[in-house]
Amino acid sequence: MKIIKTIAAMKNAREKLSGTVGFVPTMGYLHEGHMELVRRAKSENQRTIVSIFVNPAQFSPGEDLDSYPRDIPRDMEMLEKVEPDIVFIPSPRGMYPPRFNTWVDVEKVTEHMEGALRPGHFRGVATVCTKLFNIVQPTTAYFGQKDAQQVVTIRKMVADLNMNVEIAVIPTLREPDGLAMSSRNVYLKPDERRAACILYHALKLAEKLWAQGEKDAHRIRQAMIKLIEEEPLAEVIGYVSIAHAETLEELHEIKPPALVSLAVKIGKPRLIDNIVLE
Amino acid sequence: MKIIKTIAAMKNAREKLSGTVGFVPTMGYLHEGHMELVRRAKSENQRTIVSIFVNPAQFSPGEDLDSYPRDIPRDMEMLEKVEPDIVFIPSPRGMYPPRFNTWVDVEKVTEHMEGALRPGHFRGVATVCTKLFNIVQPTTAYFGQKDAQQVVTIRKMVADLNMNVEIAVIPTLREPDGLAMSSRNVYLKPDERRAACILYHALKLAEKLWAQGEKDAHRIRQAMIKLIEEEPLAEVIGYVSIAHAETLEELHEIKPPALVSLAVKIGKPRLIDNIVLE
Repeated sequence: MKIIKTIAAMKNAREKLSGTVGFVPTMGYLHEGHMELVRRAKSENQRTIVSIFVNPAQFSPGEDLDSYPRDIPRDMEMLEKVEPDIVFIPSPRGMYPPRFNTWVDVEKVTEHMEGALRPGHFRGVATVCTKLFNIVQPTTAYFGQKDAQQVVTIRKMVADLNMNVEIAVIPTLREPDGLAMSSRNVYLKPDERRAACILYHALKLAEKLWAQGEKDAHRIRQAMIKLIEEEPLAEVIGYVSIAHAETLEELHEIKPPALVSLAVKIGKPRLIDNIVLE
Repeated sequence: MKIIKTIAAMKNAREKLSGTVGFVPTMGYLHEGHMELVRRAKSENQRTIVSIFVNPAQFSPGEDLDSYPRDIPRDMEMLEKVEPDIVFIPSPRGMYPPRFNTWVDVEKVTEHMEGALRPGHFRGVATVCTKLFNIVQPTTAYFGQKDAQQVVTIRKMVADLNMNVEIAVIPTLREPDGLAMSSRNVYLKPDERRAACILYHALKLAEKLWAQGEKDAHRIRQAMIKLIEEEPLAEVIGYVSIAHAETLEELHEIKPPALVSLAVKIGKPRLIDNIVLE
């Protein structure tokens, strides 16, 4: 497992790799969900590259860029168990040198949900992924379904700009009580941690109502909101959305595949989760 | 010389090419300047690809997209003399399918000059070049110095987004009287054609004043404008700029390398030209 810290060295190392390359871009503070992405990348490719980069460009002003959890030694320990070929850890200054001025903007699919709450977030995501794809030149890049709107945005960008990379999406990994794994779960205090499974319960409720024949998106959203409001530590600060799984336009009548997603504040962090109604 | 009309076929053909690939993106209606780009690409690479695509995204509303000169048979005849390996002629619908929504924005260097006169122009240029670079995957792409701000923008984009392509720039080719070659010269009526060399004369005047020791950018701009105003068919509708050659920020005191550029309306078309003070 080789650690590379500069873009030039990464490009250089990439040139020497032949065969298929799987790529797992991360912001570090890894959890089992990331490990699953690496395992999948390894099983499908001859070489695997993981990047760790807390991307300043995807944090909106006032967000948790400075306090975002970082622990490279801990990440390395975890990665040694799954053994990617290369771990790429660029510096913020290497990625965004002075006078950096080029941005990739994916419109429409980034308007609602996270995009509405986090100005510039997806511009930062699309830009850093473009850069990382150009540096790492992967055959396939692996993302988690937990960040559903990110997945839709990256897929759209790759298609629109004719990028030479496949996007693979891995199902969300969950804790035993249903909470989606996330680096931000570390922010939760014990009672908040117990309350946080409300996101999953609300999603399961949507799934149940849909299975029972409910097609009215508004009625399902209302039922989800009502359930969340019964949890005193939870606050629907974000959104409860039932949208077309590809265009992310909000639905009146549910037609599968539909993306049910939500953002709920539990204590300090705003948590997100989603399921797809097939 | 193979003609390819779809993106999928072009990607497919590219995969079969080994060695260095030179790429000349054009909007067609070729002239000697384009031929020079192709000859240079051929001399420096094992394979050469030319694209012809009148890119709708780089025309502002009200500009000459519909009337922009097109003549593919004539272009083919010219290209047969220099013989690139592949001519790629995608369709507007292939390049911009319905729901196309991703844009590449290079900020700052696109604010002034052409960028100020043509809203969205450089967003369209950066986006189509990103797409073409991803489709053609060239070792080196060749551009003409005539579109100086375009060259600066593309170079900045390639650097900022870590793209894997070299940008080569070829000096502007000129008619015997100094007029820079351009597909839009076809718009000029005979008396306008005679008047059009005023752009070159204004640039040569700047060069002469600079050589004589003048360092005040404002005084040189004023002298250029005065010269152009003496030509009854010319109108400084655009700009007369003396700017830092890389950041394109306007200069007070000239320090080389400085880009002297101007846009002047002669009859119907707005013509542009530039020189660099080294």
